[in-house]
Amino acid sequence: MIKKVEEKNENQNNSKRVYVEGPKHGVKVPMREVSLSPTRSSDGKETENPPIRLYDTSGPWGDSEFHGQHELGLPPLRKNWVLDRGDTEIIDGRKSTPADNGYLSDLHAQRSDKRTNELPDFDRSKVTTRKSLPQKTVTQLYYARQGIITPEMEFVAIRENMKLQSLKNDLKCSEGEDRNTLVHQHQGESFGASIPEEITPEFVRSEIARGRAIIPANINHLELEPMIIGRNFLVKINANIGNSAVASSIEEEVEKMRWSTKWGADTLMDLSTGKNIHRTREWIIRNCPVPVGTVPIYQALEKVRGKPEDLTWEVFRDTLIEQAEQGVDYFTIHAGVLLRYVPLTSKRMTGIVSRGGSIMAKWCLAHHKENFLYEKWNEICEIMAAYDISFSIGDGLRPGSIADANDQAQFAELKTQGELTKRAWEFGVQVMNEGPGHVPMHMIKENMDKQIEWCHEAPFYTLGPLTTDVAPGYDHITSGIGAAMIGWYGCAMLCYVTPKEHLGLPDRDDVREGVVTYKLAAHAADLAKGHPAAQFRDNALSKARFEFRWQDQFNLSLDPDKAREFHDQTLPQDNAKTAHFCSMCGPTFCSMKISEEVRQYAKERGLAANDNAILDGMKQKAEEFNASGGEIYQS
Amino acid sequence: MIKKVEEKNENQNNSKRVYVEGPKHGVKVPMREVSLSPTRSSDGKETENPPIRLYDTSGPWGDSEFHGQHELGLPPLRKNWVLDRGDTEIIDGRKSTPADNGYLSDLHAQRSDKRTNELPDFDRSKVTTRKSLPQKTVTQLYYARQGIITPEMEFVAIRENMKLQSLKNDLKCSEGEDRNTLVHQHQGESFGASIPEEITPEFVRSEIARGRAIIPANINHLELEPMIIGRNFLVKINANIGNSAVASSIEEEVEKMRWSTKWGADTLMDLSTGKNIHRTREWIIRNCPVPVGTVPIYQALEKVRGKPEDLTWEVFRDTLIEQAEQGVDYFTIHAGVLLRYVPLTSKRMTGIVSRGGSIMAKWCLAHHKENFLYEKWNEICEIMAAYDISFSIGDGLRPGSIADANDQAQFAELKTQGELTKRAWEFGVQVMNEGPGHVPMHMIKENMDKQIEWCHEAPFYTLGPLTTDVAPGYDHITSGIGAAMIGWYGCAMLCYVTPKEHLGLPDRDDVREGVVTYKLAAHAADLAKGHPAAQFRDNALSKARFEFRWQDQFNLSLDPDKAREFHDQTLPQDNAKTAHFCSMCGPTFCSMKISEEVRQYAKERGLAANDNAILDGMKQKAEEFNASGGEIYQS
Repeated sequence: MIKKVEEKNENQNNSKRVYVEGPKHGVKVPMREVSLSPTRSSDGKETENPPIRLYDTSGPWGDSEFHGQHELGLPPLRKNWVLDRGDTEIIDGRKSTPADNGYLSDLHAQRSDKRTNELPDFDRSKVTTRKSLPQKTVTQLYYARQGIITPEMEFVAIRENMKLQSLKNDLKCSEGEDRNTLVHQHQGESFGASIPEEITPEFVRSEIARGRAIIPANINHLELEPMIIGRNFLVKINANIGNSAVASSIEEEVEKMRWSTKWGADTLMDLSTGKNIHRTREWIIRNCPVPVGTVPIYQALEKVRGKPEDLTWEVFRDTLIEQAEQGVDYFTIHAGVLLRYVPLTSKRMTGIVSRGGSIMAKWCLAHHKENFLYEKWNEICEIMAAYDISFSIGDGLRPGSIADANDQAQFAELKTQGELTKRAWEFGVQVMNEGPGHVPMHMIKENMDKQIEWCHEAPFYTLGPLTTDVAPGYDHITSGIGAAMIGWYGCAMLCYVTPKEHLGLPDRDDVREGVVTYKLAAHAADLAKGHPAAQFRDNALSKARFEFRWQDQFNLSLDPDKAREFHDQTLPQDNAKTAHFCSMCGPTFCSMKISEEVRQYAKERGLAANDNAILDGMKQKAEEFNASGGEIYQS
Repeated sequence: MIKKVEEKNENQNNSKRVYVEGPKHGVKVPMREVSLSPTRSSDGKETENPPIRLYDTSGPWGDSEFHGQHELGLPPLRKNWVLDRGDTEIIDGRKSTPADNGYLSDLHAQRSDKRTNELPDFDRSKVTTRKSLPQKTVTQLYYARQGIITPEMEFVAIRENMKLQSLKNDLKCSEGEDRNTLVHQHQGESFGASIPEEITPEFVRSEIARGRAIIPANINHLELEPMIIGRNFLVKINANIGNSAVASSIEEEVEKMRWSTKWGADTLMDLSTGKNIHRTREWIIRNCPVPVGTVPIYQALEKVRGKPEDLTWEVFRDTLIEQAEQGVDYFTIHAGVLLRYVPLTSKRMTGIVSRGGSIMAKWCLAHHKENFLYEKWNEICEIMAAYDISFSIGDGLRPGSIADANDQAQFAELKTQGELTKRAWEFGVQVMNEGPGHVPMHMIKENMDKQIEWCHEAPFYTLGPLTTDVAPGYDHITSGIGAAMIGWYGCAMLCYVTPKEHLGLPDRDDVREGVVTYKLAAHAADLAKGHPAAQFRDNALSKARFEFRWQDQFNLSLDPDKAREFHDQTLPQDNAKTAHFCSMCGPTFCSMKISEEVRQYAKERGLAANDNAILDGMKQKAEEFNASGGEIYQS
């Protein structure tokens, strides 16, 4: 059973919620501020370590001053932002039907499924439904093109500047010297990305205007704390939740949402496929501080009782509107699976493994007609524009095995994704593109390069990719490798994979393992591409480690609870956490302790760090190498 | 508590031990053969899937016909190979002393440590100690240079050819078509490595002769099943075991050895630092089918009661001989930590984090003399040559944090490692070089390139590297990312990191997690560099997955037990494992099922896989791109 998310960690991790206010719109941006203990040098002198501020995705749930209830939902943070723009109206909206939850009638629902009684419908009496006024476009892309900096843009600009928020804390060494000038801040290798030292609201606006970044933010998801997806920003991660016909329940899904965002999920996709889809989604959105994405064809398929060939444009359109009015922030739509691409998959090792892809492939073949999502693209764009829902153009023909990576079917669809991207932009709709899947390391970069070229720099959003097929049970890792690499190459968001991938449904532990694995992959990517707001956290943690500030090391880590738990398994005593040794080497010997002595020795003897003799030696070696013709391989 | 390694998995995983005999020396090479169930097509037709043979590191312990006991040790597989060369003699060898186990006297040992009674000394009455005859060199490098193909070389050549052993099984599709011509076998991107389609004994010899590969195989470790380390071979992994002053026991270490090799460790390093070092090592070596490495300075330090400044050449030399006679296959020696490099670390974020490095740094500074390991290099080489112990030249100044990656201290030492490599080769000693550590992704390749250049293509052996510092508790993953990448770039062996890195001592679960993570990283690297013996396993597993052959999917994976356990958590019923659906989608919908239908449909309608219209379209697109000047980034 899923237990309630614990609140206790807040204080245990010596951190608190702070808010930074924006000067333009007065937005209040949440951060987690970690207090650090002072550095104690060998002569007993103490030097203060100022607090570090970290990006925080947990929403009001992560604020110990907030005492909300799932039944009431989160406060509508963006309400006035949307109202002030004056380009929307309140509408009655579509009436929910039993079919939305997979039932023939209300009676049928009550009879057939006891789960209906576990959680009632969310009380929407205080929730309004909005839509753009006629002839108005209400998307962040539209505003950005007009030169308007929205509160959403100001919010994400502040959020992306964690280093500046913590800058004064960075890199102070134990002796109080300023090590900024000494410790190398790596430049990264950005492959064409260009990240400024400070992210300004204007920079955010310009990136959105040219389609290189998106802020998924449905005007009906007022509870949302905005975030940005684009390759000139921090790499983001998505966690999938969702019930299925075999397992899970509504209450579990709401808890999974809170659990995922506690560990750092930047967006959530609700991939529910069984009963109660509509009800589950409502509970999630009303309580969710991060963007929620869905694959509407999943629900549409339930409405036609699981038969792809029975899908119609009308059922699908109705489902889009249903979800748009609830506040879904982005839709995965598999409009690139064209009829003529489907046979390209028939000789594959693993055919079509995307659910959406196989649904549409089956529909195309059953009717021998072009994919209706492609045919109705303009109509879909109009709906998306009316609520500011972003596209996540699906990759229905992504490879499902190493053997099928980067094949003709996959790349044919990617080209069509690019065409659809341009058409969506004409309607003012924000777009990202989905990518694979299963790709060996040496073929990952080609995916990124082609996507940038063919999809006109729209953000890329990939599932892993898994770099080998041989490790079921460890696919968070096989895919974490690929995710870190493609993030480095320019991928904007990484869809997590849990250890249960290919085997079963993730439980609470799997979600945590998957989210933290993807957070570390995204962070490794930020470091490698030289994001200015990345390395300060590594530096702060490494400094704490070197100085045996165990609690600080735990608290600065992605998963403080696990770090503490692992440490305590070997050395459970409280005093071990203030000890100047660790369990790897024991109390009589420690390499870090010796390093401290080396430093002291070097200081006393005045040994120069820039010993000229060494530099000369290295220079000479390089010259020898060049003189020999610069051949790396000599027999 | 550590439990006994279970034997039951052998049959549960539908696999058995087979041996392939070599034509030249009659060597018998162990492999794990996995039997597969037949493919059932939708019309009920069954097609056989021949068995797959996999590389197996578990030694005789993995053979259900073998009924050995730890007390007797493993059979001396290489005894006649060594005897037949006629270049060694039996010697009395050095007498073990109480100090070898960290005690002042035998009495002291019995009194002070109850662990002495837990496990007695290994009974060496049937174990002989050998050394080269005067003026003889007995190393694989020496033989290779003479043009001699040893049984060890033939053994590893057969072992590296797993694909050929399973070739006939590869890529048969469910309809019985030969998909060899259809499914793309990726070429890989090898960065200068050149792996032949078939590894011959002569190829092995030539790689060893030029120093580009090593077979660590002490003439006193006759129980060893030889393996090869080099960038034109499968990427190998090392697992560290070893007690410490704070935790662990001898029996635990022997079990950890069997546990590690069960999951796939190619070599083991015994990094013990507390009491009973000598005794622990003896038990491990006598029972260990893979090469054993050590860091002799650890034991030498214990002999001088933990004070680096008290170390002498005589104590160290005596320790080398002690371990050489026991059968250690490779020694990590930190001879590249030169006096003049030490001050280069004083301004680092995390100073010196290598134990060996900090021991030698402290010694150098305490005496203000050059590192005695460097000064005595020739004498050390002579000892190594007399037993065929390989060097693993240590990287004592490796970076301990992202901030310190690729700095002057690290690269200064790497150059000296190159110098020492050449000098060791002059003595006929096999060499590999150790590498970092903590390195962000974009700086990993520089490590590999410089090592190849400066160390003359000797094999590289790295610890990870960790690609970020922010995830203690997940450092098997932060480092698995770096390990996979550097393996792709040409690194020959990857030293594993467990989830407990930086926090505590690994237990049994941590060892399994670390080993499997590194196996998958090594395999991802083999795929990416295009090793011909890699992709067949991914293909076999993916085909099983696509065809809902659940048991085959489990049995072909790196950790069958975990895959099975995860599957059963959601669908425990036995019939679920033969079901044509999985828990992710449930019984009424499955994308893989639809793919099967698509394939059937495409076949019936005769839709051509190579649709000319599509090909023409892609060609045209490419031409457009070239016509536009081939610029990837267009505004």
